[in-house]
Amino acid sequence: MSSYEVYYLIMKIAIIGAGYMGAAFSWPLRDNGHEVNLVGTHLDGEIIHACETTRIHPKLKRPLPEGTRVFPLSRIDEALEGVEVIVSGVNSFGIPWIAEILTPRVRSIHKILSLTKGLDITSEGRVRHLLQVITENFPEDRKREVPVAAIGGPCIAGELAGRRQTCVVFGAEDPTVGTFFKKTCETNYYHIWTTTDIFSLEVSVALKNAYALGVGIAYGMLDQQGGMDQSNASMHNLASAMFAEGTWEIAQFLKRTGGNPEFAYTLPGAGDLYVTTMGGRSVRMGRLLGEGYSFQEALEQMKGETLEAVEIIRGVARWIAFQDQQGQLYRDEFPLMRSLVRTVVEGKPLELDIREWFGGAY
Amino acid sequence: MSSYEVYYLIMKIAIIGAGYMGAAFSWPLRDNGHEVNLVGTHLDGEIIHACETTRIHPKLKRPLPEGTRVFPLSRIDEALEGVEVIVSGVNSFGIPWIAEILTPRVRSIHKILSLTKGLDITSEGRVRHLLQVITENFPEDRKREVPVAAIGGPCIAGELAGRRQTCVVFGAEDPTVGTFFKKTCETNYYHIWTTTDIFSLEVSVALKNAYALGVGIAYGMLDQQGGMDQSNASMHNLASAMFAEGTWEIAQFLKRTGGNPEFAYTLPGAGDLYVTTMGGRSVRMGRLLGEGYSFQEALEQMKGETLEAVEIIRGVARWIAFQDQQGQLYRDEFPLMRSLVRTVVEGKPLELDIREWFGGAY
Repeated sequence: MSSYEVYYLIMKIAIIGAGYMGAAFSWPLRDNGHEVNLVGTHLDGEIIHACETTRIHPKLKRPLPEGTRVFPLSRIDEALEGVEVIVSGVNSFGIPWIAEILTPRVRSIHKILSLTKGLDITSEGRVRHLLQVITENFPEDRKREVPVAAIGGPCIAGELAGRRQTCVVFGAEDPTVGTFFKKTCETNYYHIWTTTDIFSLEVSVALKNAYALGVGIAYGMLDQQGGMDQSNASMHNLASAMFAEGTWEIAQFLKRTGGNPEFAYTLPGAGDLYVTTMGGRSVRMGRLLGEGYSFQEALEQMKGETLEAVEIIRGVARWIAFQDQQGQLYRDEFPLMRSLVRTVVEGKPLELDIREWFGGAY
Repeated sequence: MSSYEVYYLIMKIAIIGAGYMGAAFSWPLRDNGHEVNLVGTHLDGEIIHACETTRIHPKLKRPLPEGTRVFPLSRIDEALEGVEVIVSGVNSFGIPWIAEILTPRVRSIHKILSLTKGLDITSEGRVRHLLQVITENFPEDRKREVPVAAIGGPCIAGELAGRRQTCVVFGAEDPTVGTFFKKTCETNYYHIWTTTDIFSLEVSVALKNAYALGVGIAYGMLDQQGGMDQSNASMHNLASAMFAEGTWEIAQFLKRTGGNPEFAYTLPGAGDLYVTTMGGRSVRMGRLLGEGYSFQEALEQMKGETLEAVEIIRGVARWIAFQDQQGQLYRDEFPLMRSLVRTVVEGKPLELDIREWFGGAY
């Protein structure tokens, strides 16, 4: 037996970050009987105020589950008192912030679960998953003692909060940690698989945002050409090719970085890409680019929105630049990502090198 | 140089089958300057009549490309006179018929390209691609001499006819044959990759119909629960998990049958599955099952429609039954396909074993 056999106990859990996903995560936790303290970040003031006064979460547009306690950031230390599990519910832009919040507060009794999808890619092409960033300044003993895990897979927050059937993957280096979190969070609508390959999990779910933007481009090109033609031809063929080039490039990136390309055809790859193409900001940004707007113009139209797709394209741009500089990549590798980099990072007009797609097997 | 260096020449080509895809294929061929004879099957009488009198193809709702000549089946031998390339444009139900048509007519000068997606699976679990069925009764010398190829990948016929960007894969055992057909058919909107692995190509594009039906089930379950809830939660999470279980099971099937699982994350797998989920009969059948209709009731509602998804489920049911009988499969392998088999083949109520998905790594 591992040290985590306490899983059937009711635990005291704090979720930090009260946006869509952080708040939605209170549903499976409360349904399992855990005590849940939902703590707003410095950006969540209005959300917390609304929850305190109306119980309705203003983004999810639902009352929080019965018994969920909400806390403004000013009361975070009270919210963390006696908790065993800390859930980080910030988005990828909040990672430096959550690291700062947790580093002085983490105790050996804690276990940390991160809901954030993303990668940290340095200008030297070093690719890290976000658990590594969150914990990098933890005191050495805490780094050793505190179990950490991350979640990937197709999960729209509003559907989780609606108790719709959802399948996700929890990644933790130690399989007993994955099992612990699975037992803690699993319900009859929230189904959890576990993996010890956090890297492949996180690469897949981070890159999918960029490729969902790609799928959006196809429909933007359709709009730009006046929508469906007189015989109702859409652009699903191109969108599908974009989708497949996306899963293909995720697999190639995994091969290039020592990951497992099989993630491209399961929940974190194909599944998470599919759910992301069903709507949301990445697709909208792609659509604007496909319509012919420059990246700056598209950004202007989406002012104030969190664009994780743009961040991951910028990150992969650094990786590609470094690999190219080292002579490690052929120029025809990652052709869709290179198109996205030219438009999003270098501000150039969109140009798709369709004939370079699928490994230049053309 | 291969014997196919004549590719830049204008050729005389007959397409047999004047339905959606057969007719749509005249666009890239005519755009490349080939002479095109479009021959209706015994089921295409009305289409041919409409094309002869109005030039408008009644299903594609467009005039055929300038210069395409249409022929009723009664004039097939006239249509085949002097042709170098024969394109089989029937659907999978037409395979025995096209084999009967071609077997006595095939000449050593011919090259055959098949647009049909599907597999032939016997009760002894033998899995063959359809080129093997089409050519099995050819005279021995013709079997040796006549190059054959098949097409897979995401291609809605109406979009091809609308000259929308489309990416497909041509499979031929001899790579020079693949290249020949690529040069013959490629345009600035119809992009072609080639593979010698016809088996993996055809397994992927055939199985995707069954899994598109799976994705439809999610949205049928949504309808059955009254559609989106008061907070707009849909069922994209479940649809995405279905999608991913589909690409996963395609990969597992390829592994089990000596194919290449990488096809699951490129055009024939993820790409063709994506395009199929964007609408069409497989999704509609799934939707009815998800709403709670029995298979017989759903079939009644879709009377007269060609249901290739049902055929492939029946075929894979034979393969699974044989493998099970031989003790070759674990009972938790192919859980989504087994659910589809129970409902579609055995007439049982729909039951999803979500917790068995993804290799039982649950």
